[in-house]
Amino acid sequence: MDDTAQRLKTLRQTIDGIDDQILSLLNQRAQAAGQIGHLKTGVLYRPEREAQILHRLKEANSGPLPGASVVFLFREIMSACLAYERPVSVACLGPQGSFSEAAVVRHFGHAAQRRHCDSLGDIFRIVEANETDFAVVPVENSTEGAVGIILDQMVDTPLQACGEVMLPIHHQLLVRDASLPLSEITQVYSHSQSLGQCHHWLDAHLPQARRIPVTSNSEAARLVGNSSEAWAAIAGDLAAEPYGLYAVARHIEDQVDNTTRFLVFGHLVAQPSGKDKTSLVVGVENRPGAIHALLTPLAEEGVSMSRLESRPARTHLWSYVFYIDLEGHQSEERVARVLQEIKKNSIFVKVLGSYPVTVSI
Amino acid sequence: MDDTAQRLKTLRQTIDGIDDQILSLLNQRAQAAGQIGHLKTGVLYRPEREAQILHRLKEANSGPLPGASVVFLFREIMSACLAYERPVSVACLGPQGSFSEAAVVRHFGHAAQRRHCDSLGDIFRIVEANETDFAVVPVENSTEGAVGIILDQMVDTPLQACGEVMLPIHHQLLVRDASLPLSEITQVYSHSQSLGQCHHWLDAHLPQARRIPVTSNSEAARLVGNSSEAWAAIAGDLAAEPYGLYAVARHIEDQVDNTTRFLVFGHLVAQPSGKDKTSLVVGVENRPGAIHALLTPLAEEGVSMSRLESRPARTHLWSYVFYIDLEGHQSEERVARVLQEIKKNSIFVKVLGSYPVTVSI
Repeated sequence: MDDTAQRLKTLRQTIDGIDDQILSLLNQRAQAAGQIGHLKTGVLYRPEREAQILHRLKEANSGPLPGASVVFLFREIMSACLAYERPVSVACLGPQGSFSEAAVVRHFGHAAQRRHCDSLGDIFRIVEANETDFAVVPVENSTEGAVGIILDQMVDTPLQACGEVMLPIHHQLLVRDASLPLSEITQVYSHSQSLGQCHHWLDAHLPQARRIPVTSNSEAARLVGNSSEAWAAIAGDLAAEPYGLYAVARHIEDQVDNTTRFLVFGHLVAQPSGKDKTSLVVGVENRPGAIHALLTPLAEEGVSMSRLESRPARTHLWSYVFYIDLEGHQSEERVARVLQEIKKNSIFVKVLGSYPVTVSI
Repeated sequence: MDDTAQRLKTLRQTIDGIDDQILSLLNQRAQAAGQIGHLKTGVLYRPEREAQILHRLKEANSGPLPGASVVFLFREIMSACLAYERPVSVACLGPQGSFSEAAVVRHFGHAAQRRHCDSLGDIFRIVEANETDFAVVPVENSTEGAVGIILDQMVDTPLQACGEVMLPIHHQLLVRDASLPLSEITQVYSHSQSLGQCHHWLDAHLPQARRIPVTSNSEAARLVGNSSEAWAAIAGDLAAEPYGLYAVARHIEDQVDNTTRFLVFGHLVAQPSGKDKTSLVVGVENRPGAIHALLTPLAEEGVSMSRLESRPARTHLWSYVFYIDLEGHQSEERVARVLQEIKKNSIFVKVLGSYPVTVSI
């Protein structure tokens, strides 16, 4: 045996020894998780505890494995340890392979059982009826054309927001005939969100093409697939095959870190993890200074806002509806004081929930 | 603090201690894998070594984690350890979310880089040109209507088969109008494979409906989605959303363990793992006794055959083409003797490769 072969053999023996130790520790971990299960009733998953574990290990990691790998592997280890007692079940929008399913797996790991829902109305109802433990719904920057309805349903549901998921999304330019020069494309179809997100690329590469917003990226792909015109669609990879389209340009979004944000809803109230957000919906009167009055307490208490978005109200009870994300947990004193003040200055407040900030991978 | 809270705290501290040890071991493992990387050139992935590690750990596992979780977690640990030096790149058919991509992830773990190909011709060419390390292609029981072409391409490519993947596949009954009673459905469209696989369910629930085979399950969904007739399609979840269809019955396949089989192709020759298969393509003359003569050596040497399938030959050089999977590695003496005998009794033999039997999860 030459020197290299001998060293290879030694290294492989080292790895086998490490694997034996990891295997033993994984089973010890599952056992301890099982004992915790016997202390509790109902859902064993604790969002704040998972977030704390992942933050701590990412921080403690000295490499050479990158932090993203550490977070990914421990998410899956926790998912497997939880599942052997009783897997978490999660409702999500759309079929196997949808972005929403990817968000479920990113948050709960592969051992989570997925329930695929055909309609947005089903998702909340299924969790409300305890058919699944949680629901994962897109709330921001979604190209599925559905965010408005979700926001309305969030106001109506008795469920609590108890987690957030950030999913990177990429856009492709899809055409029927891959040999068509870009300069001959006359129209580009997509959801308005996607057209906006690919603005610079379209200016540079398809200045001549008319941009036509449609209800969803899937709908754009369908239109282009069914037409013999020199049209293109902007959509994700998922939309290409079913409509016989080819991706002739990939990752054409202007921002490389383009993400869709999802919220996790369930019956449980997430306890503070040390790094949390609170989401709320607020209705205010349409009078001068109303928004300013609403936001003053945040500045006074030094509470940051990570999102403020207005939406037309569905009813005439109030005039504007705002969706607000605050930094901090509602059980923190300054956040509680801010919520108290916001209540005074609004017609209606619904706190959707406080939950750990997502652990990035 | 009451007794339960105290016990919970102690168990959580135990888990934190275990996690610290796992984290340290994961990094030690990545370091050792990196040192192996410096001993070698080219692709670091060794199919036989991975299979041996997974078999060994599944065997050694004493629980409570199930074997499937152990295999899943170690597949991902190996994937992450390999990726931090240089990720494996793999070409697969279809868009993000396709069954082929799921097969790549199941075999190479999440850290594998995926290259999505629009056509079957591209897949082999990309690996032949060293643009990716491997290709994963469906070879059996695929509902993508493409197996025939793949089989022909396997004969032409200089690449070696170096792994297999088994992916569970589920079928759904998809319709446009979810309120349509099953008894009113007049026609069911699907790939003939899928119609066959749902035979019993169709007999019991849709006896009146005509079964119409089409080129792929996606095509079936497209036809049903574009028609206002009382038609249904059988397809996977992926096909529902793009065509505006609803799954009104799920997992309607007769066999619960319905799987699609994929082969992994690359430049490397997999060494024996101790539990291997060998795939070959054989051309024989169309004369009485030809097939019997071909198979006699297998019986004599006690080599099992896990698959035998005939296909019409593309040319007139020979009359029948058989695809055969043998148990064992071509470097084993009795397998080598069988291959020698088969060569004598055929016009043409191509050994696609020997590779480890998939480690089931």
